[in-house]
Amino acid sequence: MIKKTDVIVIGAGLSGLTAARKLEELGYSVKVIEARDRVGGRNETHLLADGQVLDLGGQWIGPTQTKMYELCKELKLELFPTHNEGKVILYDHGKKSLMGSKNGALPKLNVFILLGLGLIIKKIEKRVDQIDLDAPWKHPKAKVWDSETLESWVRKNTKLKKVRAYFNIVSEVVFSTEASDISFLHFLFYVKSGSGMDNLLNIDEGAQKERVVGGTQQISIRLSELLKNEVILESPVTRIEQSENGVKVFSKEQFWQAKKVIVTLPPTLAGRITYAPPLPGMRDQLTQRIPAGSVIKIQIIYKTPFWRKKGLTGQAVSFTGPLKIVMDNSLPNDSRGVLVMFMEGNDGREASEWTLEKRTQKAIGCLVKYFGDEAKDYLDYIERNWCDEEFTRGGYGGHFTPGVWSGFGKYLRKPIQHIHWAGAETATVWNGYMEGAVRSGERVATEVSETLKDS
Amino acid sequence: MIKKTDVIVIGAGLSGLTAARKLEELGYSVKVIEARDRVGGRNETHLLADGQVLDLGGQWIGPTQTKMYELCKELKLELFPTHNEGKVILYDHGKKSLMGSKNGALPKLNVFILLGLGLIIKKIEKRVDQIDLDAPWKHPKAKVWDSETLESWVRKNTKLKKVRAYFNIVSEVVFSTEASDISFLHFLFYVKSGSGMDNLLNIDEGAQKERVVGGTQQISIRLSELLKNEVILESPVTRIEQSENGVKVFSKEQFWQAKKVIVTLPPTLAGRITYAPPLPGMRDQLTQRIPAGSVIKIQIIYKTPFWRKKGLTGQAVSFTGPLKIVMDNSLPNDSRGVLVMFMEGNDGREASEWTLEKRTQKAIGCLVKYFGDEAKDYLDYIERNWCDEEFTRGGYGGHFTPGVWSGFGKYLRKPIQHIHWAGAETATVWNGYMEGAVRSGERVATEVSETLKDS
Repeated sequence: MIKKTDVIVIGAGLSGLTAARKLEELGYSVKVIEARDRVGGRNETHLLADGQVLDLGGQWIGPTQTKMYELCKELKLELFPTHNEGKVILYDHGKKSLMGSKNGALPKLNVFILLGLGLIIKKIEKRVDQIDLDAPWKHPKAKVWDSETLESWVRKNTKLKKVRAYFNIVSEVVFSTEASDISFLHFLFYVKSGSGMDNLLNIDEGAQKERVVGGTQQISIRLSELLKNEVILESPVTRIEQSENGVKVFSKEQFWQAKKVIVTLPPTLAGRITYAPPLPGMRDQLTQRIPAGSVIKIQIIYKTPFWRKKGLTGQAVSFTGPLKIVMDNSLPNDSRGVLVMFMEGNDGREASEWTLEKRTQKAIGCLVKYFGDEAKDYLDYIERNWCDEEFTRGGYGGHFTPGVWSGFGKYLRKPIQHIHWAGAETATVWNGYMEGAVRSGERVATEVSETLKDS
Repeated sequence: MIKKTDVIVIGAGLSGLTAARKLEELGYSVKVIEARDRVGGRNETHLLADGQVLDLGGQWIGPTQTKMYELCKELKLELFPTHNEGKVILYDHGKKSLMGSKNGALPKLNVFILLGLGLIIKKIEKRVDQIDLDAPWKHPKAKVWDSETLESWVRKNTKLKKVRAYFNIVSEVVFSTEASDISFLHFLFYVKSGSGMDNLLNIDEGAQKERVVGGTQQISIRLSELLKNEVILESPVTRIEQSENGVKVFSKEQFWQAKKVIVTLPPTLAGRITYAPPLPGMRDQLTQRIPAGSVIKIQIIYKTPFWRKKGLTGQAVSFTGPLKIVMDNSLPNDSRGVLVMFMEGNDGREASEWTLEKRTQKAIGCLVKYFGDEAKDYLDYIERNWCDEEFTRGGYGGHFTPGVWSGFGKYLRKPIQHIHWAGAETATVWNGYMEGAVRSGERVATEVSETLKDS
């Protein structure tokens, strides 16, 4: 007989590695199984020819993400601030204006619009305050909020087109999907989970405040090196069988046995594993209902950060696509300039059908509009379409469509016999972010250890 | 070398069997592969001890479902009318009233409410008329309609609570899900696809007009008997590989080769197959976004159809759950009475967690309220929770959540190299119904035959 591991963890991203580590610390034996040929999940660091690195996935951390700060400190990873000196470009259907970079979440718009926007944000914040992160479906108005999309709620609450457009940008930037696609209740939950609108959207003192020297994948690499057992790579899990005695986890070629299994995949991918016996209907239907957003992350490298000498941050916010958001992503101790930009939601979907050449042209076209002709002379173009990634299938994370929190929220973290669920999408605090992934890993490790103690 | 089949069809429901048959008629060799130990998909006929049968899944056909009438005639299956003589019970929070059974889609409510309801239905019908069934996303207002849920649109258009409640019932009855869960654009598409509100909801001259003697699964059984090759049962497909030369289709134990493959599974299940090479991001993301409704179909058998002698049809419509809809489902040439009822949407979700005993009690409790104490003395209780079915995972079909038609509609039927898509969810006419399944099978057979001719 093979000696059974205590716990198998599926997925070697931040959530899975955190869970594995904590369980090992508690004295349990753990195997981590990963589909890809690398650890890190949605944190992937791209090596440039000269040894410098860029993050193709999640890259920022900021205030209230306490677990991430602790983790980076412990793993001896240095941080550096996101460049935020100078003016931000607001591009409004051909009209370019400049705004300060320390404004908070509000773009520079005319006073009438700003007032309208302020009112809406106040209304949202009032509702956000009332959300219970553990159970957003329990609010007395949850069903009503969950029957609206973010877009239909905003449209009902303001006639100002600019304000509506602003929330479409917010939705694309935060969820990589259209404001039409997400439940208004989910938006409220997410804003609360991310410490409020300002914190979610800001650079200074916000979620985009700092970056990791050497790239965020280093966090997972270093975490995996601390584990007793090597992570089993290139082994997409296809099947989980469970019985009273424990679980069997199958890849195409082999299988492993354990007492418990933790699935850290995003719900939409967790639903693709074959379970025997089949999972209860409600758990299955939950996984049918949390699609990933659509995002292509693009980074363009220039000889210098030419925008800085013009007094610009390198940030641009545009009401029109395909690039609605651009930021300075230059490297520390490097003379080159890097711009990072996102084609998101419907922009990302349309761009998915373009050739690489067309996407490059379109991106450069936008940058020229925002930053001038110097944007034409780039050294390198690097992109990652997360929708095409077989083991992610979208970004930044899964979002709840209308009716899902109220109809299925209670199944999100509910274990099924020996199967426990983790991943950024299951987090209450910083849901969808690296911080949420780590927190979900800690939560599930405690949960599993409690059940192992009892058995 | 194994001789390659021309076409593999995955799924032996109406769509797959229709496609297989038509392709055989055109001279191609076809293999149908089915996950279950039976054909019929969402048509499943339950044998009673005495040899009589009840349908656990789809069971009704009606006007404009021309393919279904042709098919039944050709297969020598007889039809019989749904019982619709007498009064219909309207149960409104403890208050019971009776209405005629030939009213059209409108319940008997006070004049003020009926007027409000009439206005809303008129508004809906005006919009329905403008929908292009082939491409609902092309309407100039498609994005706005697709950013609303059916519930938020109705709430915006009427203050009358009864009218809002009416549409919640409509949503549960037609989609097995809450009005909060579906896109308003999808609702418009679906109503048009189903020949209008009246036709969708009615018994006389509507989609619930007639039933098949011997049960609807007979259609699939007889279709499968007409095929040259026997359907390969109990073989859930886990993997599809394709190359220039064609496809390989894998179950757990074996594989088959062909030039083309037709996947007839509902999108949410089609997305669970592993594809090599991986499918393009947009096709994958589509399958993340069309969840199935939640439905438990219950049938309760009585010694006699006791409601008939009271002048009742056996139909009840209730504003409160868990049974919002009941109908007479008695058998032809049988003295017993059968009531069929549905726990749908949030009712179905809640009831999924109950024990069989509790569901039985709750169902009988409702029937007693609607039909009196005689409802207590039943002979048999038969149920099917379609959410728990591993190879269906919900019912009646998949619905489009907000933003999905506009963001992803064009990928619904778009072949990926040698893979073609069918199934009731891909139909333009009678989407989600048996009629739509058959039409999708015919459409895909033509599509595949065209590409085979070209190659």
